[in-house]
Amino acid sequence: MDKMNLTMLTDFYELTMANGYFQNGLKDKQAYFDMFFRKVPDNGGFAIMAGVEQLIEYLKNLKFEDKDIEYLRSKALFGEEFLQYLNNFKFSCDVWAIPEGTPIFPNEPVVTVRGPVIEAQFVETMILLTINHQSLIATKANRIVRAAQGRDVMEFGSRRAQGYDGAIYGARAAYIGGCVGTACTIAEKEFDIPTIGTMAHSWIQMFQTELEAFRAYARTYPGNCTFLVDTYNVLKSGIPNAIKVFNEEIVPRGFRPKGIRIDSGDITYLSKEARKMLDKAGFHDCSIVASNSLDEYIIRDILMQGAQVDLFGVGERLITSKSEPVFGGVYKLAAVEENGEIIPKIKLSENVGKITNPGFKQAWRLFDKESGEAIADVLTVNNETIDESKPYELFDPEYTWKRKTVTNFTAKRLLVRIFDKGTCVYESPKLREIKSYCKAQTDTLWDEIKRFENPHKYYVDLSRPLWEMKERLLQEYSVK
Amino acid sequence: MDKMNLTMLTDFYELTMANGYFQNGLKDKQAYFDMFFRKVPDNGGFAIMAGVEQLIEYLKNLKFEDKDIEYLRSKALFGEEFLQYLNNFKFSCDVWAIPEGTPIFPNEPVVTVRGPVIEAQFVETMILLTINHQSLIATKANRIVRAAQGRDVMEFGSRRAQGYDGAIYGARAAYIGGCVGTACTIAEKEFDIPTIGTMAHSWIQMFQTELEAFRAYARTYPGNCTFLVDTYNVLKSGIPNAIKVFNEEIVPRGFRPKGIRIDSGDITYLSKEARKMLDKAGFHDCSIVASNSLDEYIIRDILMQGAQVDLFGVGERLITSKSEPVFGGVYKLAAVEENGEIIPKIKLSENVGKITNPGFKQAWRLFDKESGEAIADVLTVNNETIDESKPYELFDPEYTWKRKTVTNFTAKRLLVRIFDKGTCVYESPKLREIKSYCKAQTDTLWDEIKRFENPHKYYVDLSRPLWEMKERLLQEYSVK
Repeated sequence: MDKMNLTMLTDFYELTMANGYFQNGLKDKQAYFDMFFRKVPDNGGFAIMAGVEQLIEYLKNLKFEDKDIEYLRSKALFGEEFLQYLNNFKFSCDVWAIPEGTPIFPNEPVVTVRGPVIEAQFVETMILLTINHQSLIATKANRIVRAAQGRDVMEFGSRRAQGYDGAIYGARAAYIGGCVGTACTIAEKEFDIPTIGTMAHSWIQMFQTELEAFRAYARTYPGNCTFLVDTYNVLKSGIPNAIKVFNEEIVPRGFRPKGIRIDSGDITYLSKEARKMLDKAGFHDCSIVASNSLDEYIIRDILMQGAQVDLFGVGERLITSKSEPVFGGVYKLAAVEENGEIIPKIKLSENVGKITNPGFKQAWRLFDKESGEAIADVLTVNNETIDESKPYELFDPEYTWKRKTVTNFTAKRLLVRIFDKGTCVYESPKLREIKSYCKAQTDTLWDEIKRFENPHKYYVDLSRPLWEMKERLLQEYSVK
Repeated sequence: MDKMNLTMLTDFYELTMANGYFQNGLKDKQAYFDMFFRKVPDNGGFAIMAGVEQLIEYLKNLKFEDKDIEYLRSKALFGEEFLQYLNNFKFSCDVWAIPEGTPIFPNEPVVTVRGPVIEAQFVETMILLTINHQSLIATKANRIVRAAQGRDVMEFGSRRAQGYDGAIYGARAAYIGGCVGTACTIAEKEFDIPTIGTMAHSWIQMFQTELEAFRAYARTYPGNCTFLVDTYNVLKSGIPNAIKVFNEEIVPRGFRPKGIRIDSGDITYLSKEARKMLDKAGFHDCSIVASNSLDEYIIRDILMQGAQVDLFGVGERLITSKSEPVFGGVYKLAAVEENGEIIPKIKLSENVGKITNPGFKQAWRLFDKESGEAIADVLTVNNETIDESKPYELFDPEYTWKRKTVTNFTAKRLLVRIFDKGTCVYESPKLREIKSYCKAQTDTLWDEIKRFENPHKYYVDLSRPLWEMKERLLQEYSVK
């Protein structure tokens, strides 16, 4: 997509700090930053990683234009040498990320950046913005799709999205999370996400009667005919008229009706009655589409009550993740280098849960070799290896007496290199592959982790060397 | 801003309907659509109109490119003549909108479009997306700014915004709603919104000690020095170190310290103690900035408890309108033309509140001539005039016995023409003017309407001719 240069989409403090590092001789000091999050939205058991492809685009296109430099000069805050440096800025960091579609858990690094502090710090805002947004929507979509229990879910929310990118990349993330498609046309054009759409209430109102409106639509789209049936009265008018037009205009042309859509009223009751009426008329294959302020909770409830819905169109509550519209990813300094040595850094907090995991790390996922199920994630110091051939002891980093020895497992590194000294070394999979990968990886999680309320907590443990490093830093700081 | 062409950012059903209208000879049928909303977010008493400038840009740039046509052709749904029509598409509608910064109320048209149905329908998605998003954020910002009771509020939320435009246009809308600025750099570059920023915790961590970090920053920005004081311990370390560096590095250079920022812990307690310490050190003029999951409720509460905060930095709860992240604007057919006559259309619902106001309308605001206060809004048939020289009788459209006669008032048309037959005839005011206008217009509202909880309901009444038209249509439809 031709897009504006987003280099200047950054919190201003990234620039004041950059100039400060520059002035204080820290320009080339190597730093390690991690993006991670602390809590799954909606109190869920896991989130879905998304946005890496857009993050890569951003990092590839980082460039300060002349007018950016002029603007910055006008602030009268920055040195000329620094502005010159920005003018010649070239991103030179190493970047690792967990691939899109992967289930991710609190407190594990999902993006790690290593490089000159001035660069590694600068990209904070856009890393967070990109990954926070798409992971939020992919996570929400995944919940909604799981609630639909195999029925299709379409993303219908563009008009209520928070801005244009909210709609476009929201549709992308929703597809990764499991939606079968979107109503957002540009998302099909740009990302090849299947798009459908039929009619609004205004279509019906443009004709003298609902029957005329259906007839006109059927003649235009005989092979692709879904009627919106709730403009006047679903059961007394919409469905009878739909059946009449199916019989008069669709079947004689050698087609089968595609569906009816209910956008108001009690979906459970109306869909059950509609199903009976359609079946009685011989249209067992006619789908029932429901839309109207749906989310995972309503879908779960109406399905429990026997609603006869084949496809859910989910709008504002998906595209804004309405029940929890913030994915709280943060970006924290994890280490610096001094004379070539990695010096881990920790950020303390009175809230124990907010203390960061120090050092240059790798995140591993252990899978049961037999069942393929995910057992736990383990954060290690980056140069550690988990040896699959030996039993591996997991222990709770807080309650260290809680231990478990794992055998017969495979261990997979989660963070993969996406930039090597500023050069992209990763090719994003096709979106359909990311979506399939997401489904396959979500299937490796225990059902207990997938509960909407009070899910089982998946383990994200620390290796012994990492745990010891953290303990040592805690001791050091508490002495201070 | 150089942006991608957003013509294809549309719900796919706008295109299937467009092709349907085209095939059924309705291409040039004149239709009237209104955008309105039904409920103020957060149960507030009013919303703030925003996004008109971006809506104008979109409408000016409507154009299907060759690759759009190719993509649409590949869907095998549309006729060649229709695709040819899209290829030559030129927007030719009349558009009216309520100017940005105006307080707006449920059920009044905030945008009205008149023109060939195929065009007037097509722009639905982007009208809603644009106005819904920016009005949501402007409305939330206005609440937060009112809670701050004259203290400054900065928008700090880019990293948690729902996409890039969510951050950029969100900063714009927040400024309209009353924020004094933003941390989002590109928003200053593009919209001239004042931007500030100082340091993150990582700045502190990059130095051996907090004191060193402060010193380095002070030497770089002696005239612009705000320290983040909560990395280790606000009262035992942050403030004492800040005062020390103010005295050693700032004052001797002939400057005054600008501020300290507290980003965690109990803001009320910490800010009160910090104020005492700063005052005692002679820095009465040093501002205290607070940030950390703030919104209008927390700001109100901590100010009630005497928090000593001069500037609030508000992030995720503003940029996503976290407590209610959806502005529910809808776009409904209000009338069609037949042989040059305007035929009003109504959309019924079992929920009385969801029945639309039919016809081609104007929205008026009546102000008390003496106090300048807004008395009520009145929706009229478009060609009606409200005569300020005569008493005007308001009545409740539902409980028609509730009446009030207004005298000594001025009546202002709210909807202004922005497009005349596809040509833009409106120049957007400068953003600063919109912001001032918002403040001035919000000041015309009674305090009772501005309560956060259970505000007084502002009247949006119907003129007698409009009320009679609506009643007539209700009768006609209920007979059916």
